[in-house]
Amino acid sequence: MKLVHDPIHGYIELDDFAVRLADTPEFQRLRRITQLGFAFLAYPSARHTRFEHSLGTFYLAKRIRMHNPDIDEGVIYAALLHDLGHYPFSHTLEGLFPRHEENTVWTIKHGIIGDILRERYSVSEFLGLIKHPVVSGDIDADRMDYLVRDAYYTGAAYGVVDLERLVRNLVLEGKRLVIGEKGLIAAQNLLLARAMMYPTVYFHHTAKIAERMLQEAVRIEGVTLEEIRLMDEVDLVSRLRSSEKPEVAELMRAIDDRMLYKRAYCSRTELGSGALKELKNALRDEFGHLALLDYPPKPKYEERNAFVRTCDGLKRLSEVSPLVRSLVEMKDVHWRWCVYARKDVMDAVSEYVSDFQNP
Amino acid sequence: MKLVHDPIHGYIELDDFAVRLADTPEFQRLRRITQLGFAFLAYPSARHTRFEHSLGTFYLAKRIRMHNPDIDEGVIYAALLHDLGHYPFSHTLEGLFPRHEENTVWTIKHGIIGDILRERYSVSEFLGLIKHPVVSGDIDADRMDYLVRDAYYTGAAYGVVDLERLVRNLVLEGKRLVIGEKGLIAAQNLLLARAMMYPTVYFHHTAKIAERMLQEAVRIEGVTLEEIRLMDEVDLVSRLRSSEKPEVAELMRAIDDRMLYKRAYCSRTELGSGALKELKNALRDEFGHLALLDYPPKPKYEERNAFVRTCDGLKRLSEVSPLVRSLVEMKDVHWRWCVYARKDVMDAVSEYVSDFQNP
Amino acid sequence: MKLVHDPIHGYIELDDFAVRLADTPEFQRLRRITQLGFAFLAYPSARHTRFEHSLGTFYLAKRIRMHNPDIDEGVIYAALLHDLGHYPFSHTLEGLFPRHEENTVWTIKHGIIGDILRERYSVSEFLGLIKHPVVSGDIDADRMDYLVRDAYYTGAAYGVVDLERLVRNLVLEGKRLVIGEKGLIAAQNLLLARAMMYPTVYFHHTAKIAERMLQEAVRIEGVTLEEIRLMDEVDLVSRLRSSEKPEVAELMRAIDDRMLYKRAYCSRTELGSGALKELKNALRDEFGHLALLDYPPKPKYEERNAFVRTCDGLKRLSEVSPLVRSLVEMKDVHWRWCVYARKDVMDAVSEYVSDFQNP
Amino acid sequence: MKLVHDPIHGYIELDDFAVRLADTPEFQRLRRITQLGFAFLAYPSARHTRFEHSLGTFYLAKRIRMHNPDIDEGVIYAALLHDLGHYPFSHTLEGLFPRHEENTVWTIKHGIIGDILRERYSVSEFLGLIKHPVVSGDIDADRMDYLVRDAYYTGAAYGVVDLERLVRNLVLEGKRLVIGEKGLIAAQNLLLARAMMYPTVYFHHTAKIAERMLQEAVRIEGVTLEEIRLMDEVDLVSRLRSSEKPEVAELMRAIDDRMLYKRAYCSRTELGSGALKELKNALRDEFGHLALLDYPPKPKYEERNAFVRTCDGLKRLSEVSPLVRSLVEMKDVHWRWCVYARKDVMDAVSEYVSDFQNP
Repeated sequence: MKLVHDPIHGYIELDDFAVRLADTPEFQRLRRITQLGFAFLAYPSARHTRFEHSLGTFYLAKRIRMHNPDIDEGVIYAALLHDLGHYPFSHTLEGLFPRHEENTVWTIKHGIIGDILRERYSVSEFLGLIKHPVVSGDIDADRMDYLVRDAYYTGAAYGVVDLERLVRNLVLEGKRLVIGEKGLIAAQNLLLARAMMYPTVYFHHTAKIAERMLQEAVRIEGVTLEEIRLMDEVDLVSRLRSSEKPEVAELMRAIDDRMLYKRAYCSRTELGSGALKELKNALRDEFGHLALLDYPPKPKYEERNAFVRTCDGLKRLSEVSPLVRSLVEMKDVHWRWCVYARKDVMDAVSEYVSDFQNP
Repeated sequence: MKLVHDPIHGYIELDDFAVRLADTPEFQRLRRITQLGFAFLAYPSARHTRFEHSLGTFYLAKRIRMHNPDIDEGVIYAALLHDLGHYPFSHTLEGLFPRHEENTVWTIKHGIIGDILRERYSVSEFLGLIKHPVVSGDIDADRMDYLVRDAYYTGAAYGVVDLERLVRNLVLEGKRLVIGEKGLIAAQNLLLARAMMYPTVYFHHTAKIAERMLQEAVRIEGVTLEEIRLMDEVDLVSRLRSSEKPEVAELMRAIDDRMLYKRAYCSRTELGSGALKELKNALRDEFGHLALLDYPPKPKYEERNAFVRTCDGLKRLSEVSPLVRSLVEMKDVHWRWCVYARKDVMDAVSEYVSDFQNP
Repeated sequence: MKLVHDPIHGYIELDDFAVRLADTPEFQRLRRITQLGFAFLAYPSARHTRFEHSLGTFYLAKRIRMHNPDIDEGVIYAALLHDLGHYPFSHTLEGLFPRHEENTVWTIKHGIIGDILRERYSVSEFLGLIKHPVVSGDIDADRMDYLVRDAYYTGAAYGVVDLERLVRNLVLEGKRLVIGEKGLIAAQNLLLARAMMYPTVYFHHTAKIAERMLQEAVRIEGVTLEEIRLMDEVDLVSRLRSSEKPEVAELMRAIDDRMLYKRAYCSRTELGSGALKELKNALRDEFGHLALLDYPPKPKYEERNAFVRTCDGLKRLSEVSPLVRSLVEMKDVHWRWCVYARKDVMDAVSEYVSDFQNP
Repeated sequence: MKLVHDPIHGYIELDDFAVRLADTPEFQRLRRITQLGFAFLAYPSARHTRFEHSLGTFYLAKRIRMHNPDIDEGVIYAALLHDLGHYPFSHTLEGLFPRHEENTVWTIKHGIIGDILRERYSVSEFLGLIKHPVVSGDIDADRMDYLVRDAYYTGAAYGVVDLERLVRNLVLEGKRLVIGEKGLIAAQNLLLARAMMYPTVYFHHTAKIAERMLQEAVRIEGVTLEEIRLMDEVDLVSRLRSSEKPEVAELMRAIDDRMLYKRAYCSRTELGSGALKELKNALRDEFGHLALLDYPPKPKYEERNAFVRTCDGLKRLSEVSPLVRSLVEMKDVHWRWCVYARKDVMDAVSEYVSDFQNP
């Protein structure tokens, strides 16, 4: 047994099996994967990593299981390992490579960590546990930890949630983790807090620009899936810094020195998939790596689907809570696409996209 | 100059004039007026008083004025004194007597504190300052302080608000205190936090029952406005304890010992004013002080009217924010009226009201 | 089972027996006994009561017992009830009446609460449990709770202690609660924090003056032990306010309005018991209730006697820690006696005591 | 003007000159220098960097200057830049290279940042400002920030200090920053907190072992001063990982995977400088990079020399405070030297050093 001190949850107890899982290179690598990508460029203190978050998710899964002893014990280890596959800078590169969940599967299948897991679980059994509602549900240990942790590290006021109340009011009913009526307000609060973290932290434009710049650098450098799977941030950054392709080194240096591109154009008008492709290609032809289109997917609020046990029976959260419905309505409020450009071509890019939009 | 240490705002600086105002019997009396009435029966730690809250409101008004130097200096003293007229247990007795704002006016007119004020302001001038949007607006120093303070003292997770961001983004435009666009999320957060404090803290049924019991005791005792104006909680409680009317002493003892009435009947169906009066009288005739009707007014969310300065001009908060609109929609969700009854007549009362409702 | 929300410990679970004990008039009375006497005159936010502190002590005793299952279960109820006998304004009146511990014994013997206790424990057995080291030791649940709680409510920075680490490292060895080596730093921190709370909060001169004034009022009023035993702060304050003796009413009003006496004389030179008596009497003859001698006992730091389990065997904390030794050395640093006087006789009193000291 | 959000100080305002200084590659590099070296191996959440700390020091220097307007404005920029010269993993490599203060001088002389500074200050003038007591004194902005920040990021309970009280009670007297009497307890608290952070965080053996391993890797790799000056942690780690010397790559991989050496031998007995050299060489000859001697210097507590303005005149802190004296006495309590070894040679190393010590 081992105790880890954590500013969010106090002392986290790791049993021997958890210690062995944590003491693998695959898990230690998470220490070098920043939780919030480039958010630290806007919130300098947001330097926490997937490592602490994974320990925190493990802790909360154990707490939920204490109140629901029927939950398979393996779920707590699934909580510990659910983020194993994150690439450098977390979600930043998921557009270029398969989603991190797939890389988690790969890592478990091919890493030392898989050998330890196989002492207790078959791989397919364990991969099933990662999809358990305690780990990957609508209101789950993962979200509960990252929200509170991200708020602590950024200093944002929005992420304070009564986790204890929520934990005490999550009940496993069959395959569902259902919110008890007494946990309803805490659950709404979790979703609201998350909704407020999006515009202020998760979608902060400074972080988005740096992320888009890194994507471009990685794309030009031609880093392969086989390479990126095993990389931590040291590997990736040093590779890009020392690239033989001048654009790559230039992009990486600009990120390092925080000499970021600026927004040359932003719009809330959606583009059809044809127009999108056309604009992307046109920009690349015209400006190369100096103008970068950022067309994010519309956010989803799947948590509205979480189930609540009310006196009128089982209901969806969005049925019960006008606040949650308004979150769904709001989800697009902060959505927009932008074109970022290097300072010296800002005006040219701005004009170019305007013309493209209003020919 | 005097420094007061406060767990919410750190050090609060009181200038000499503020010290003189605070050193009056009228202001010191606020130390013996509990901020949240009987909420401490549900949240034992909620023992803070109007005194600390008044200092906190003064502090925030000063901070807002630092960013808006055009605001009349008197506003900060109005913030200090805005709650001077609260009766024992704050809002509890406002149904029996004029609203506390009127008592504030009376206190300023008749108290020692008025003499000090008149050195700088005419009474009518000062009463005008209390209505200034910094003190009594939609988003004001009063609400900003009490929300965060109530959360701290109850330990509720919902009251964490980025006051600093809000303070920096409130701009006086003519007679309005307008929220700057960068303060929009903090302002929404304030309203959301407030909305969550209502069902969990402010309308907690235990507190409501005790409040209704106290109202009844005060009513039966026949405490007059002239008396209550000058009372603090010691005066009122000792008066009721030693009442010659046995029902009064019994009610007060039940509150003291937390042997509270229970909910015999609750309903979300509104009553017309005729039916309401009829039920009230019928209950009193049948059960006397043993059955108490609690028919609260529907809550208002006037903050939705707060103005926001957006790139499209001045807008109402509810126009800009679907969240705030849903708060308005939600405001009735927790509304209901109840009849509370002493344990031994619970069933009889319950049956009686059912019959009344469905004759 | 009942859950109580507490800003210090989160959720406190009360089992059915604890609920029944807490639902007695004797225990509910603690809601009206301020934890820190008149400290709120210096720290307005320090309005917490013995009630919350008792719940917190109960919680910590349970936590210590979780790590030491051999501890008698009754200890947790002893922790809950250990402060039952406190008089109004906590320690303020202990000079006039027997120490509160004796009143706790009396209350258990004569109150309703005793009847409930007797279902499980004989009275003498239970009184023994109150002396158990978990409740009344050198490092115990009582001190751990009040220190952290007092810091939270005053906003003092000094009371942050790693309670979790301490709880995990307290081991019952025979009749002793011994600090494990890994808890040594947390234990030192507890003592240091306490040492810093003394001059800043516990011995704050404003509170001391008000306390001395209340003592005098109670003494002149002639309140008896039989009366004070059952009083809460409402009873006592209203009795003194409405006293027929004008000095009593005057003293109480001065406290209420915070028109406190001032320090007319202070000295760090000890007085022999003869001189002390002589001065006391002389002041009373000369100035009556207008000059009040405050000659506090020297503080003790019994915690230095706590035992620590080191690799070299069982040691006293003061042996192991130079810091703790220096606390013992320091304990007198802030000690002094004073004479407080009403403003109009300040100079006369000051001169009188000077002459007495240097005849 | 620019606002940076910080969980410790709230909003930090950077004026235009500060923004220009911060927007240099030299300052941005601090984002990639971990504040506490390898402490994150023991406290996973301790991922903060010299960047945030530098902003926090700037903030506190400004606050101190607000209360002491005579302080040269340049001092706040000196506070911002005082840590510019830190090598990767902060203090870890100072044994191999000149102290970081010297590298700060070099960086200012040779970097872009120097060009900006020279618009306002001569280099020698500015280097003088870095030695100003607000930046590099006994109780200074640097220590005040790092202590509270390190506590926040590790979750340690010890680092809570009343910074506001301290800031308000630091007075520039000639060339000294003197603690006012009202700041004495806060100042003692700062020192105590620091003293408790040493054994629990700063000297945590896990971090020390990793640091010693990195030193050895850097030594063997033969990294030069010219190289290290400009490196951030990405540069250094990737260089060591890809070293052609197998011992270097092996050491780096062991750190990455947290497969650390263990303590083979520890002692509190000092070694003469001859014996020390002899043991070092003997170990190297016998075990190469597999056994590493860690012989730390004895800690100093120079803060005891801080001056306090008491009613008896100017005194040294250690004169006034027995607690501070005991800290000086205690400073060696946790001192010891160790030999760390790879698992497979543990026993051999242990025996070897024992024999060396007791031949």
